[in-house]
Amino acid sequence: MNKQNVPDVIVSRLPVYLRALQRLADAGETATSSQELGEKVGISAAQIRKDLSQFGEFGKQGTGYHIPFLIERLSQILHVDRIWDVAVVGMGDIGHAVARYNGFANRGFRVTHCFDADPAKIGKEIGGFIILDAKNLVEEVRKAEIKIAMLCVPATVAQDVADRLIEAGVRGILNYAPLKLIVPSTVRVQHIDPAIGMQRMTYYFD
Amino acid sequence: MNKQNVPDVIVSRLPVYLRALQRLADAGETATSSQELGEKVGISAAQIRKDLSQFGEFGKQGTGYHIPFLIERLSQILHVDRIWDVAVVGMGDIGHAVARYNGFANRGFRVTHCFDADPAKIGKEIGGFIILDAKNLVEEVRKAEIKIAMLCVPATVAQDVADRLIEAGVRGILNYAPLKLIVPSTVRVQHIDPAIGMQRMTYYFD
Repeated sequence: MNKQNVPDVIVSRLPVYLRALQRLADAGETATSSQELGEKVGISAAQIRKDLSQFGEFGKQGTGYHIPFLIERLSQILHVDRIWDVAVVGMGDIGHAVARYNGFANRGFRVTHCFDADPAKIGKEIGGFIILDAKNLVEEVRKAEIKIAMLCVPATVAQDVADRLIEAGVRGILNYAPLKLIVPSTVRVQHIDPAIGMQRMTYYFD
Repeated sequence: MNKQNVPDVIVSRLPVYLRALQRLADAGETATSSQELGEKVGISAAQIRKDLSQFGEFGKQGTGYHIPFLIERLSQILHVDRIWDVAVVGMGDIGHAVARYNGFANRGFRVTHCFDADPAKIGKEIGGFIILDAKNLVEEVRKAEIKIAMLCVPATVAQDVADRLIEAGVRGILNYAPLKLIVPSTVRVQHIDPAIGMQRMTYYFD
């Protein structure tokens, strides 16, 4: 399988399938079907079968999917069969919240470093972390070989901080700042934008 | 046009197009093409043309799209050619951050009500709002005819609060809590889940 050949839009659905499967597993289920999974995630059964077929043969006609196996395979495909260390930059409200977020368990991530540029915050403890000085960001992130960061700084400094994260070797940025980051093609950005989420709902309002 | 006939996956892309168009407009551009727009949003030009064709004729062969017109039409389609009042429930870190988020301007939303159940927070001022007592949630939300809410409470109480929001007439919930809400089919939920965003990036990591 060549990763380059799978459309981004299909890749973007895999974590949604994985989350639904993990919830089924947590509920004690061991088998599911593309129909059931489709109802859980709001995507057609045919689309799910087509998406998964990009990566191999996961189910049997008539017997459906074995949940632990599909979880294992999707985790491998998404590279979350390991734990990625994550840096949080900007320890304002959002930074505090994501550093302590309890939805990462068993999903491939753990926050290991928190940075801020404010002398009043540096050295303070938050959720078990000591807030590190952002002026040492490049050095610390490089030393820890961190590849993924949550960017929680104000929009005015977000591009500059992103540039430094990338200089330090970061390859994926979860961007909470309300602006579009300009990054090299080798770096991935996912933008957390509440207005997008709300517009996806108001469409359906009268 | 029948809204029921447009697949959710197409609807989910419209806000992304609108955001890109608004950025082009902010940069002083008045015309664009499906090619240029596609490069901005990482979606093929053919897909963009196909998506927009669900809603009418927006561009001319050879001359592309007139940005102000397309912004106006997409805003109408997404029902953000008006301003929706938004309630924030749960004034912890995330609630504080979203109540003061400065990425909503010109995008159809304004936070008008903030609620918390903590007596230490009720009555306090945050970003121009007085935090209201969550025990009056149903009454206040109904009175203000609020249709959309950002749910920023702990996972343990999120379902209960969601039930009360729906009882009060809310039809769309932006859910920041790490759990799946169970809602009637008439209510929309968008889940803000940072792990999903990060898994969409780690796929591409070696």
